[in-house]
Amino acid sequence: MSVTPDLSTSLPALRFEIQAQDGEARVGSLTTRRGVIDTPVFMPVGTTGTVKAIRFEQLESDDLDAQIILGNTYHLWLRPGIETIRSCGGLHRFIGWDRALLTDSGGFQVWSLGDLRKITEEGTEFRSHVDGSLQFLSPEVSMEVQAALGSDIVMVFDECAPGNASHEETEKSVGLTARWARRSRVAFDCMQLEGVDTGRVKNSDLSGTQALFGIVQGAGHLDLRRISLQETVEVGFDGYAIGGLSVGEEKSVMFDVIASLTPQMPKTQPRYLMGVGTPQDLVEAVAQGVDMFDCVLPTRNGRTGQAFTSTGKLNVKNARWARDTRPLDEHCGCLVCRRHTRAYLRHLYLAGEMLASILLTHHNLAFFLDTMRGVRQSIRSGDFPKFRREFTERLDANGE
Amino acid sequence: MSVTPDLSTSLPALRFEIQAQDGEARVGSLTTRRGVIDTPVFMPVGTTGTVKAIRFEQLESDDLDAQIILGNTYHLWLRPGIETIRSCGGLHRFIGWDRALLTDSGGFQVWSLGDLRKITEEGTEFRSHVDGSLQFLSPEVSMEVQAALGSDIVMVFDECAPGNASHEETEKSVGLTARWARRSRVAFDCMQLEGVDTGRVKNSDLSGTQALFGIVQGAGHLDLRRISLQETVEVGFDGYAIGGLSVGEEKSVMFDVIASLTPQMPKTQPRYLMGVGTPQDLVEAVAQGVDMFDCVLPTRNGRTGQAFTSTGKLNVKNARWARDTRPLDEHCGCLVCRRHTRAYLRHLYLAGEMLASILLTHHNLAFFLDTMRGVRQSIRSGDFPKFRREFTERLDANGE
Repeated sequence: MSVTPDLSTSLPALRFEIQAQDGEARVGSLTTRRGVIDTPVFMPVGTTGTVKAIRFEQLESDDLDAQIILGNTYHLWLRPGIETIRSCGGLHRFIGWDRALLTDSGGFQVWSLGDLRKITEEGTEFRSHVDGSLQFLSPEVSMEVQAALGSDIVMVFDECAPGNASHEETEKSVGLTARWARRSRVAFDCMQLEGVDTGRVKNSDLSGTQALFGIVQGAGHLDLRRISLQETVEVGFDGYAIGGLSVGEEKSVMFDVIASLTPQMPKTQPRYLMGVGTPQDLVEAVAQGVDMFDCVLPTRNGRTGQAFTSTGKLNVKNARWARDTRPLDEHCGCLVCRRHTRAYLRHLYLAGEMLASILLTHHNLAFFLDTMRGVRQSIRSGDFPKFRREFTERLDANGE
Repeated sequence: MSVTPDLSTSLPALRFEIQAQDGEARVGSLTTRRGVIDTPVFMPVGTTGTVKAIRFEQLESDDLDAQIILGNTYHLWLRPGIETIRSCGGLHRFIGWDRALLTDSGGFQVWSLGDLRKITEEGTEFRSHVDGSLQFLSPEVSMEVQAALGSDIVMVFDECAPGNASHEETEKSVGLTARWARRSRVAFDCMQLEGVDTGRVKNSDLSGTQALFGIVQGAGHLDLRRISLQETVEVGFDGYAIGGLSVGEEKSVMFDVIASLTPQMPKTQPRYLMGVGTPQDLVEAVAQGVDMFDCVLPTRNGRTGQAFTSTGKLNVKNARWARDTRPLDEHCGCLVCRRHTRAYLRHLYLAGEMLASILLTHHNLAFFLDTMRGVRQSIRSGDFPKFRREFTERLDANGE
């Protein structure tokens, strides 16, 4: 584990340039081997190799224009399995998506299994949710799987402490996360050097290898968060994520953690807040200097009949929409809002029609992605504080 | 019931022109108030106001280009109900579809309820599959519902005899169907005259009112089929459908009925074979002079993992596709075949992902609609016998 290889190229795996700043909020361009991503960016979650209920053509359309999506290592590793994806040429070719992909490490998913997993220094043993078989995930295994997937941004394998974890418990977890970060880095570098990554694409002055992000843990303990950040930065990564939030803690704890961390994070590298959150959470975190987000809310809630709108959440099942010919959101210009009424969407949902999930997911993603477009535009023009205030007031005005 | 009103306009509700003929097979243009439909045409089934798992944008895209879809009166009547659809401006506006719509009468659906329905001279009493409530459907009710839906082509309310019905049983059924056809005609004409139809659109030299098609019944009894045809033509309709096929009878019976009926059917009006069938059935029925089809096969089978391809059916679940990077159909140019592999579609299906249904439905509809495009082209160029032979040989060559 002590071998740190020299990568054969001195070119970076990605390039991040900050183009405009308004307070702590910043607009940047994140150049990966598969194109340029405008930040702040929201990444739709494509757990098993599909952003649920949405076709890739729609993700690429002007309506959504998602520049990067996320894949879950845990799910893809268990099914269809790495040999299948490798033999199909990596995750991009397997699913038919040419734009950028970020994969998580599987750490959060195995942590979520609760009693079904056992964590040791070496890694995490757990039972597969697919077939009950005993599996083992470690920094080395996670890096190997993510190399086979060929994602453009790889996440280190981390340990997530529960939102309410004690200081002692969290301290141990943070220590383990730091050791796993180092092991992830070494395993990753070895594999990149050996050319194991199936998804190499040369893009301008980038190395064409995968990028690796570190993850800061520490639950709600600000002192441990700072230690975790310091230890993660010492290892050195292409970007830094804040993990272990939105896992049951109070929202104020989440924003305390973000506010205490971001001023200490490397200024010239991308900052990624994992698994967060509502549209309002996104805007607030941008105000603290966060650049990247992923969350299942727009897709998952779309499938359960909840729409995010500029005036708050809307439950499509509500009887008051039975004959309402207005779109979901009168301020939204997405394909769904241009074409379909609340009455029709309610009917589809009550009839159990798949099209309800399809259309609500589309609208919700459009709303999240449009929000980020609005955020970027307002930062560029120096109007972000106004945007933030008006966005929040409008959301609160008319929510259900 | 004896009043037969004069419609205030002498313009027809639709216009059918035969443009080319090759043997009995014919290419025509069916002009409805919502545009021109090239025949022979396949109509995707949109039971509850959605062609399951497909967005309207896709139905309109060059890839599918469905010119007309079908809605089920029975389902829409029970949910969301006619008052809702009427207050939303008719079915087109309710679902967001500007192209042509055909609605069935509900007769087949209530017939399918089996023991849950009771048929009398007046109509059919049955229990709703949605809430178990007692409901009554009759020619007059069906015409009223279809007027509220505002579909472009309305079907008479008929009685469907089982595929294995005796001569005596079928004779009674055919008699009832004839009396219901007359009642449908009268009720329909009264409503058109009163302007009850919510979907009026004026198109060139058409009346802008709905068109009404009659339905020929008679199970597998050719003599009763001919009587039913004669009685239906005597009432007089804008087009004629062959109903009560593909309900469990032998395939040879179906083709005997078609072959015995089509030469007797009015030559200058559209002929519609209801609820049929496989791609091969469609091509064979075209050879007998049929112009219109609808069937749930491409959509329903898509949701259960079955693809229709030019070389036969393909079960996407099959383990042999686990790492197969070929498209579903190597001769297909649809969006799904251009982008996705069998390996990926199998993975999506096994993972229970909605995208499996979405993509398989898209491909299957593309295959059915492309087949009809090929049929039309070959009839125009006088190559239909060759097309028919090669299409059949290829299907048989490599089916699973």
